[in-house]
Amino acid sequence: MYLENINSPADVKKLGITELDSLAKEVRHFLLQKLSDHGGHIGPNLGMVEATIALHYVFNSPEDKIVFDVSHQSYTHKMLTGRKDAFLNPKDYDDVSGYTEPSESAHDHFVIGHTSTSVSLACGLAKGRDLQQGTENVIAVIGDGSLSGGEALEGLDMAAEIGTNLIIIVNDNQMSIAENHGGLYHNLQALRDSNGTCACNLFRAMGLDYLYVNEGNDISALIEAFLQVKDTDHPIVVHINTLKGKGYSFAEEQKERFHWGFPFVIETGETKKEYQFGPGFGDFTADLLIAEMKKDPRVVALTAGTPGIWGWTPEKRKEAGKQFVDVGIAEETAVAMSSAIAKRGGRPVFGVHSSFLQRTYDQLSQDLCINNNPATIVVFGGTLCGLNDVTHLGFYDICLMGNIPNFVYLAPTCLAEYEAMLRWAIQYTEHPVGIRVPNVSLSATNDTTPEKSYDQLNRYQITREGSEIAVIALGSFYSLGCQVVEAYKEKGIHATLINPRYITGLDTDLLSSLKTNHHTVITLEDGQLDGGFGEKIARFYGDSDMKVRCYGARKEFVDRFDYNEFLKSNHLTAQQIVND
Amino acid sequence: MYLENINSPADVKKLGITELDSLAKEVRHFLLQKLSDHGGHIGPNLGMVEATIALHYVFNSPEDKIVFDVSHQSYTHKMLTGRKDAFLNPKDYDDVSGYTEPSESAHDHFVIGHTSTSVSLACGLAKGRDLQQGTENVIAVIGDGSLSGGEALEGLDMAAEIGTNLIIIVNDNQMSIAENHGGLYHNLQALRDSNGTCACNLFRAMGLDYLYVNEGNDISALIEAFLQVKDTDHPIVVHINTLKGKGYSFAEEQKERFHWGFPFVIETGETKKEYQFGPGFGDFTADLLIAEMKKDPRVVALTAGTPGIWGWTPEKRKEAGKQFVDVGIAEETAVAMSSAIAKRGGRPVFGVHSSFLQRTYDQLSQDLCINNNPATIVVFGGTLCGLNDVTHLGFYDICLMGNIPNFVYLAPTCLAEYEAMLRWAIQYTEHPVGIRVPNVSLSATNDTTPEKSYDQLNRYQITREGSEIAVIALGSFYSLGCQVVEAYKEKGIHATLINPRYITGLDTDLLSSLKTNHHTVITLEDGQLDGGFGEKIARFYGDSDMKVRCYGARKEFVDRFDYNEFLKSNHLTAQQIVND
Repeated sequence: MYLENINSPADVKKLGITELDSLAKEVRHFLLQKLSDHGGHIGPNLGMVEATIALHYVFNSPEDKIVFDVSHQSYTHKMLTGRKDAFLNPKDYDDVSGYTEPSESAHDHFVIGHTSTSVSLACGLAKGRDLQQGTENVIAVIGDGSLSGGEALEGLDMAAEIGTNLIIIVNDNQMSIAENHGGLYHNLQALRDSNGTCACNLFRAMGLDYLYVNEGNDISALIEAFLQVKDTDHPIVVHINTLKGKGYSFAEEQKERFHWGFPFVIETGETKKEYQFGPGFGDFTADLLIAEMKKDPRVVALTAGTPGIWGWTPEKRKEAGKQFVDVGIAEETAVAMSSAIAKRGGRPVFGVHSSFLQRTYDQLSQDLCINNNPATIVVFGGTLCGLNDVTHLGFYDICLMGNIPNFVYLAPTCLAEYEAMLRWAIQYTEHPVGIRVPNVSLSATNDTTPEKSYDQLNRYQITREGSEIAVIALGSFYSLGCQVVEAYKEKGIHATLINPRYITGLDTDLLSSLKTNHHTVITLEDGQLDGGFGEKIARFYGDSDMKVRCYGARKEFVDRFDYNEFLKSNHLTAQQIVND
Repeated sequence: MYLENINSPADVKKLGITELDSLAKEVRHFLLQKLSDHGGHIGPNLGMVEATIALHYVFNSPEDKIVFDVSHQSYTHKMLTGRKDAFLNPKDYDDVSGYTEPSESAHDHFVIGHTSTSVSLACGLAKGRDLQQGTENVIAVIGDGSLSGGEALEGLDMAAEIGTNLIIIVNDNQMSIAENHGGLYHNLQALRDSNGTCACNLFRAMGLDYLYVNEGNDISALIEAFLQVKDTDHPIVVHINTLKGKGYSFAEEQKERFHWGFPFVIETGETKKEYQFGPGFGDFTADLLIAEMKKDPRVVALTAGTPGIWGWTPEKRKEAGKQFVDVGIAEETAVAMSSAIAKRGGRPVFGVHSSFLQRTYDQLSQDLCINNNPATIVVFGGTLCGLNDVTHLGFYDICLMGNIPNFVYLAPTCLAEYEAMLRWAIQYTEHPVGIRVPNVSLSATNDTTPEKSYDQLNRYQITREGSEIAVIALGSFYSLGCQVVEAYKEKGIHATLINPRYITGLDTDLLSSLKTNHHTVITLEDGQLDGGFGEKIARFYGDSDMKVRCYGARKEFVDRFDYNEFLKSNHLTAQQIVND
């Protein structure tokens, strides 16, 4: 086995072409072993095996700097840069992250997890090099799906200005997470169909030189191309045509399903039983919207390249037809379009992950909220206990969306309340509305019948009347609020429990009334404390005798953390709160 | 005079070509009259006179919907849609805003002020129309300078997917605010040089149909082109070649200076005396950086298409040479590049207006702060009393940048402190640093010698020792803090005054120590309260006996407000604070 002896790219360079082909087979074998056992990004990595081997054969990492876009396709890179054990030995699987990570290796230059950043980052590395008379190659590796993102297109435009060595590998596997959307993909097809000779060329139109490699999974062809551009004195795109999921028939055939996956049975492609989930809030939302679409042609669902995160399977997308819009990876455009659809009388619902919504602060503020158009934004994964890669934390949407004027951001506590709020939002026409999908099981309940209308803004709901201490428990943390109230009960204190429902406003009447028979207010929020919900309560009571304690996450970036330990370290268990 | 009788686009349609040419002359005359007297966007409006007349001659606004990018070029549109008095009569000049404004007219569909949004908004209007079987034309008007912005490029890519009527007028005047930067501008030139026939075509590469009009200031040629695309059944770009500043020789020759300007003498082009400012923080910064660049080749200044806001005149840009980078209107890329330049050992300083920084929350968080690269971001216009158009408010940068982990956001109170912090930031290598340029005069002082090092984070500075009441006065509001302390003095209270310096962290030792002989803390910040600095202080003291009152702006969008009235309405005068 060759892989056992690969401790750095220098060991790759020692091999001949036939041996590199064997190495590719071994890499693919171990990728499949780990992915089937551990889960992860399947198709993107299987498609990039040969290109990654060729990159390390031709270039001299880490002096030459390779920046992987999203970096979800960097597993082979990790295997070839001293981290093979994390792929060969099941016990070491968790020694590496799923993305590039400078703390793991000098061959990784950035922590990356969001799409469309690699070209702009590579522009910066090239500029930094040029300021200091460096001579290394700078290489960005970006997938076709990521190209539609604003930052990537800005980067392509800027790359030409760099004017010196900058190599952009466009890994064209003809897929985003789902199918691609956007006009530029017709140009990529024309380029592939013409073996790169089509005169109309997006990359050349951006001022860049261009080279096409049709056999993007052929190591020899790739080495030849990379040797051709190595040490180039100007920016150039190398457009390689690859097969997503290459070498694993199920992944080649079901590209969307095998983009990312839980552990699966290699022989059948089936997801292993213990990881099968029942339907969740996403499925519920897609089904509800499809039913609404049938009643009202103005209802339209939007996604920015991530239909799967909210239940929009290919079948459901087909069923929704023109009432489902995938803008591709282009969150800014999704928000702007939602605003304008609402302006023109449509009823848009944009579903997005908390972490990816971060791309749209300006669009939320300017395109949507200043214009006060009644679009609905459904935020998934906004919780401390969701994705736990540092690049995908759902900690920040409360701070981000909760402080924009005109915006109504709601925090339902359970499915019934979520449904009521979503149905209301689709009909509401006074303001843009956000709904933070709670991180609770579908069977959770807050023991009250949710109201149908939320027109009268910023009304909190007292769900348990008490005295001395009031617990204001936002969204997913309502159940923690219940536990806190129960724990106080054991201490003989009958605390009040409040479901605030509105993240973006204070129920000043209710808060003032608490002063009569409460001395302490406790706020609980499933997000970062800084800039969040609790601080507004603290400010409100700042000049009164009411004591306020805010619970949520302290301001820090955390990576691949254990949920229970993380909650404990932030004093987010009922017992800790009561003991405080 | 024709203009007197233009009360709606219907009146434009009654005129013949010769009369329309006369109308253009009149429009241009009154534009110059108002602009020279009142200030505003000069070049962009002078260049768009003919195209706007032709648009209203051919299309049926407001049924047909025209979306102007940035909308700083919409003055002629306003004159032709019932708002001519605001251009003909000096006493009515302020009756209209400088941007499109739906509350003024049904012909305006969005409040717009940031660049690069029109195409995505138009996509939404078209989608909303199609959901409801509408038949109107949807037209986006976007300048070449705005094309480099991520949202615009996303929008162009998405436009092809709309598949129905959507007309994108690219107003190519070969300028951004300053000169254009980016590879795509070479393609625009190739298209102009080939009369639109160049086979390599950015717009066609984005999947769009395309029509070129070389005489973009010729009403007949424009009418012919617009008639050709009116009621089209698919998305199409109409690329028109216009002259920025057309018809006013000074503006034609000095395009950057006359992009936007204070009132000027028509005959000489000189800025009227009463509006001439001395040098400000921007000039100071550019000069300081040029001096640093000469000592250290690693120092590099970055702008995203707005060099003028921080003193980078054409002469100074030339002097800085390769150590000045204009990425074009592409704020996301500017932040990503800054991070990567720092990673590669450079010392980048990105200067940006508070309002435009909003475009980069995700890049600040992901590309910069998760990676913890030591780039410096200098934020201009972050104040309640800066630009007062609703689209350009500098209220939100504290909330936006103040809550991101790893980020050190500093608030100097005066020039000397700003200089010390900037010099320190350029050398600092532990974290990314932001500096909020204070909105104070260059001669303001906080009566202390600023420290040279800010390495030890989150240390507040007591500048006046007192008791009972402590005033924590952030950045620009330090002088307000002085006034509050003085006002208390008159009441016999010797209050403590604190310059917190660090927006992003609490000096917990100092804050705790205040408890011994203070009963009240007052926080003052020159920004929005929600998500801001004061709320963190309120949370800190939440469970103590310390009373906290936070002063800043309430959460609301305000437009063209009077500073004094606005400050009063937010209780931001010393007398109001002391009376509270």
